[in-house]
Amino acid sequence: MSGKLSYDSSNLSGFVGPAEIRAMESEIRKAHDFLEKRNGPGKDFLGWMDLPERYDESSLLEIQKTATNLAEKSDLTVIIGIGGSYLGSRALIEAVSSPEMKGRTVFSGYNLSGAELESLLSELKRKDFSVNVISKSGTTTEPAIAFRLIENMVVEKYGLKGASERIVCTTDRDNGALREIAREKGYKSFDVPRDVGGRFSVLSAVGLFPAAAAGVDILSLMKGARDQKLEMSAMGVTENPAYIYAASRNALYRKGKAIELFSVFESLLSHTAEWWKQLFGESEGKSGRGIFPSECNFSKDLHAVGQLIQDGERNIFETFLIVEKEVSGCAVPFLKDDSDGLNYLAGKKVDEINRKAYEATARAHYAGGVPNSTIFIDERSAYCMGKLFYFLETAAAVSAYISGVNPFDQPGVEAYKKEMFRLLGKPGA
Amino acid sequence: MSGKLSYDSSNLSGFVGPAEIRAMESEIRKAHDFLEKRNGPGKDFLGWMDLPERYDESSLLEIQKTATNLAEKSDLTVIIGIGGSYLGSRALIEAVSSPEMKGRTVFSGYNLSGAELESLLSELKRKDFSVNVISKSGTTTEPAIAFRLIENMVVEKYGLKGASERIVCTTDRDNGALREIAREKGYKSFDVPRDVGGRFSVLSAVGLFPAAAAGVDILSLMKGARDQKLEMSAMGVTENPAYIYAASRNALYRKGKAIELFSVFESLLSHTAEWWKQLFGESEGKSGRGIFPSECNFSKDLHAVGQLIQDGERNIFETFLIVEKEVSGCAVPFLKDDSDGLNYLAGKKVDEINRKAYEATARAHYAGGVPNSTIFIDERSAYCMGKLFYFLETAAAVSAYISGVNPFDQPGVEAYKKEMFRLLGKPGA
Repeated sequence: MSGKLSYDSSNLSGFVGPAEIRAMESEIRKAHDFLEKRNGPGKDFLGWMDLPERYDESSLLEIQKTATNLAEKSDLTVIIGIGGSYLGSRALIEAVSSPEMKGRTVFSGYNLSGAELESLLSELKRKDFSVNVISKSGTTTEPAIAFRLIENMVVEKYGLKGASERIVCTTDRDNGALREIAREKGYKSFDVPRDVGGRFSVLSAVGLFPAAAAGVDILSLMKGARDQKLEMSAMGVTENPAYIYAASRNALYRKGKAIELFSVFESLLSHTAEWWKQLFGESEGKSGRGIFPSECNFSKDLHAVGQLIQDGERNIFETFLIVEKEVSGCAVPFLKDDSDGLNYLAGKKVDEINRKAYEATARAHYAGGVPNSTIFIDERSAYCMGKLFYFLETAAAVSAYISGVNPFDQPGVEAYKKEMFRLLGKPGA
Repeated sequence: MSGKLSYDSSNLSGFVGPAEIRAMESEIRKAHDFLEKRNGPGKDFLGWMDLPERYDESSLLEIQKTATNLAEKSDLTVIIGIGGSYLGSRALIEAVSSPEMKGRTVFSGYNLSGAELESLLSELKRKDFSVNVISKSGTTTEPAIAFRLIENMVVEKYGLKGASERIVCTTDRDNGALREIAREKGYKSFDVPRDVGGRFSVLSAVGLFPAAAAGVDILSLMKGARDQKLEMSAMGVTENPAYIYAASRNALYRKGKAIELFSVFESLLSHTAEWWKQLFGESEGKSGRGIFPSECNFSKDLHAVGQLIQDGERNIFETFLIVEKEVSGCAVPFLKDDSDGLNYLAGKKVDEINRKAYEATARAHYAGGVPNSTIFIDERSAYCMGKLFYFLETAAAVSAYISGVNPFDQPGVEAYKKEMFRLLGKPGA
């Protein structure tokens, strides 16, 4: 259980310098104090800061045991959730689980595609499966519909008793529809903490249970988060890398850089980028302001929007997430006739070439007028993902405070739901 | 083979009106003339306009026969390509192929992830497979590395003769490394047209062969493109929906709407949104300008960046792609105790609910200050996808001309490659 996280902002040079960050010290300190003294906007939702210590070893082992039992009971674990009850666990499983465990995990309830649901239901008919349904209330339309359909199938297939062994709920401790259902039907359950917003909940049972079911070492994950928290709390406010990231992006935004790309070169980090997108977009995008967050999967997207990044409107800055040590042995073979001209790469690992692609991209984008910085993690491991989650959560909170908004509310998310309930004729809507 | 495509811009009202579009008539006409008289910037790359007629029935049947033979020879068809040699066929297969055929198709060569390649190679070891490799030159790093590894495995597994029956190349008619390889080893091949840029090539062998291998009816696809072309060519320049879309987005950009969301509610259209992203991003993002294109997958992304879209900086406009008739029978079951409160939806199809979610979102975003318009296609069918591709290609070309740039070049894409070749020590770099 080790591995570093570091933040390199040298490619911001000429756009935002250390002097400018120092000049923002009072703004950073104010945000820092909101967190430390717990007296800023949204102060009732600071539970994410305590999660690394809140789960002691025995409660983590309890989650791990229940999740492992559930997963071992069947060929497939269905995770039902949306938004903050979906993206974190999916990011973690994609980044860290083995290909085999990933193949045994499927996600549902995050959209309203009839074709996708139908195809899943037909797969579940043929397969042995278990379910983890995650919803604070139990009434969010998308996961509730998926759960209705899938619970039906569990009961048909395994009976009521079988269902009580194959369904685990993650929901509010006392209240709400899903809590009621769990109570009535005797489903095992874990709590969604009340003082943690959805997008900050990956290090609670919300993210921990699915990850454990997919074989992720959640003790290492939490140790990583704890270590990151400790390391950062020992630093001054202008040395803390999460604060520097937060301050830099505000400085860039003030200079007209309205779009942030979060760019990864490892496709297994694409959902980490999606989790990042919700974390920052939902924390900052309010009151008529907020950086527009967009993820890039390289080199795929270099061959799609690389042209625009290099040469389009200069309203973009970029944050890379790079893994220092990839472990795949996959290397370029030697070819006698060198028909494709790749022999200069023969014997090189694909991941080494990917690393050069990152270095080249960072330089080219910088030269093209796109300031960029990089978050490095040592390994694609549970431990490093724990560090990364805590680092980015801290950065998102501080960044939103610096930009003058409450990081922990989401007043705009109800607008489409209200319209939808009205159009669907929901009683009382 | 039927189905309509229509464009509804009523939710642009108050942001861009019909009078404003009419006032842009001379700009639109100039772009239109560049295309019709073939005398504008990039005039050597207008072959995409001819593709709907260029492939006669017998050449389409030849592609279909070869592709079907290849796919039937094995359990899995591996499609190797990147950028324009990847996104179009992937979009088409995801949108139109059956779940079974999708499960028998896998894509590679679009990134440099060692872990992903390793996992694919280990799957290929266990499975019977064939290959379609798509590359104009044959030397693009990502697909060339994937092809080196996968060709090796084909030869090991099936011998040289077996390889010649299981590998099909799509490449330049005469020149380049992949053409040489195909010639020497006796691989079947199809041509990448010289007068068509990558991002405009989905209706050539580049997109047709993989689609046909995955069971897509490419004759219907091409009929759709042809019909769309005919319909639009019968219209005046201020009635043509592709031109109205093109002009509207330019008008919005001039008013500071720097970001365009391309939003789908059907997850099987997510790669269509990615294809759109390359088409517009690479055509327009140059010379220090260009709308930033970003795809949204709803309702998933409503629970991630919905807050920001509703309530963040008002620099966004949105284009929806909506399918009128989804065919899934998946419906919400009735629940005796209505424990989740969803009985008001009982009996409703999930796709009907999804449709209401779209209508609600379009209204809510408009009310929140996000002008939006919608492209409707009747069905998720090969025919309608043909119409859509031709519609969007026309819109991209006209939009780039209106904004004053050459739609068909990509001067910025070499920057990272040059750096990468230097860092990798490529001879001569």
